[in-house]
Amino acid sequence: MPALLAIDAGGTTTRAVIVEPSGHCRGLGLATSGNPVSGGPEAAMASLVSATERALTAAGADARDLSSAVIAMAGAGPQDRSKEISEKLAPLGLRGPVEVVSDLLATFYSGTLHRDGYVLVAGTGAGSARIEDGRIAAVSDGLGWLLGDAGSGYWIGHRVACAVVAYLDGRAPETILTGLLLAELNLEPTSERRDDRSAVLFRLVDVLYALRPVELSRFAPLAFQAHNDEVARAIVADAASELAATLASVRRPGITGPLVLGGSVVNRGLLGVELSNNGPPITVPDGVVGAAVLGLRGRGLRCDDDLFRQISGDVAALRDAAQS
Amino acid sequence: MPALLAIDAGGTTTRAVIVEPSGHCRGLGLATSGNPVSGGPEAAMASLVSATERALTAAGADARDLSSAVIAMAGAGPQDRSKEISEKLAPLGLRGPVEVVSDLLATFYSGTLHRDGYVLVAGTGAGSARIEDGRIAAVSDGLGWLLGDAGSGYWIGHRVACAVVAYLDGRAPETILTGLLLAELNLEPTSERRDDRSAVLFRLVDVLYALRPVELSRFAPLAFQAHNDEVARAIVADAASELAATLASVRRPGITGPLVLGGSVVNRGLLGVELSNNGPPITVPDGVVGAAVLGLRGRGLRCDDDLFRQISGDVAALRDAAQS
Repeated sequence: MPALLAIDAGGTTTRAVIVEPSGHCRGLGLATSGNPVSGGPEAAMASLVSATERALTAAGADARDLSSAVIAMAGAGPQDRSKEISEKLAPLGLRGPVEVVSDLLATFYSGTLHRDGYVLVAGTGAGSARIEDGRIAAVSDGLGWLLGDAGSGYWIGHRVACAVVAYLDGRAPETILTGLLLAELNLEPTSERRDDRSAVLFRLVDVLYALRPVELSRFAPLAFQAHNDEVARAIVADAASELAATLASVRRPGITGPLVLGGSVVNRGLLGVELSNNGPPITVPDGVVGAAVLGLRGRGLRCDDDLFRQISGDVAALRDAAQS
Repeated sequence: MPALLAIDAGGTTTRAVIVEPSGHCRGLGLATSGNPVSGGPEAAMASLVSATERALTAAGADARDLSSAVIAMAGAGPQDRSKEISEKLAPLGLRGPVEVVSDLLATFYSGTLHRDGYVLVAGTGAGSARIEDGRIAAVSDGLGWLLGDAGSGYWIGHRVACAVVAYLDGRAPETILTGLLLAELNLEPTSERRDDRSAVLFRLVDVLYALRPVELSRFAPLAFQAHNDEVARAIVADAASELAATLASVRRPGITGPLVLGGSVVNRGLLGVELSNNGPPITVPDGVVGAAVLGLRGRGLRCDDDLFRQISGDVAALRDAAQS
């Protein structure tokens, strides 16, 4: 039975891996944002192709030998992009079907094989879902940077930027975030003033408006870094309470399965969040393992604990190798 | 002595008027956003030209007979756009110099002739300034929709949209704003559901993301309309406290002149705002009178109370005629 391609198309990073029916995984390929909303449709498709190429090269595999592809993506469903992605991957030689699945479902199955439970993802964006009988039964948030994604990396990064701008503008208290943000953007503080405001404020505002808004998520780590700072602590606490509300809105008393947490914000230690659950939450870095699980299941394979451990272990080893 | 052209290039509306040295004003020309940041540079320039053409036509005037033009614009100064505007107005026949002035200064001089005082503008954007000796001595905010403009029309409209989205998403309390926003966008509530959420949520999110973000300011009036609603009241109260903080940050004990308030948010009755001042604030609709005052002053004319009353009275009459 041929291998398949499993991809997690995140808001900041795309991860692709080649998965054997035995659960053996080879060739982790990484690329930038694969999400059409956060990265723009063209850049997202280019990332999917590039992560796939890297995975194939690293695995020494040929796309023509793959049976199919499963792509985990935020917002999957309403506008199914499987046809578009299929066309983009065809020139690499991939001939089998392409299925797009919810990043929430893939993140859940990166942490457990349970049929019921909950998942909360907080990376560049943020959303939560209740899983019943192996399917998404309810979703909350995941509605994008401008209108939703409460408590996400964008949400935190945007607040970091606004807090620094407001401080430099004389409207808000001093914060350690100022020095961290200016350093991150290679901006030098200055004593020069204009209309009674620091000139660095105008340079900062120019630099920030030159970014795509969703790129403000890049500054979320500063809020965690400045954990001794009152302003930063309030931002993180507010994010945690937003995420708790998002999770709470999908809870149903009868459904008591595990809670899986995924995404960079959760992984960076957003631990203050009130996540009452029966048992401790399971934290996973992303949805690539779950994309593999869903891909194998879609081909009629029963995914048991051994297979799950095989996939998880291989992906973890590939990730470690990629980071070293 | 020839007449001049005075323009207030707002975030939503541009207003142009022909001003005689006697203070007589003729031909109020209106157009959409003349602000390069909120409307985009090309649309802004087109609005300036179109408001000018309408003013000239209504006044029965010829641009070649005008001495000069003064354009009040948010963010004026750092990137002076006078050369660009001069080139755009040249085809109409305008040959004299074009000066771009701060919308804050123009709003101040729409309400008073004092040399010292304060101004708070809250329209599509929001900012405040301290005026000393007829010039801007300190500015706060006016830093745009993404990073500043705290308490502005955008700020309120964005929160209205987010409150409705969060309610439909099951993350926030019910609010009268939901019905108002859906009606404003001609969206029908529906019992159809997807992933345990109302299908109208997805239609609403699609429609809102299709707007330029700054266009969310269009929903600010709904918050005032829903004054009996707790969610709406909280948004308006928060906006008022943001505006009060913006004003507070430019205050200086020795400077005790009048406070002038301008912009659609202030005019719509944001009266809860804590604006302690020596004397009641002066409320003006926009900065077009002040642009005229600054234009006449720039040509060496002493602007006294009679001249000021003449300009204010004529502009008010033109405005009334335009609205009827």
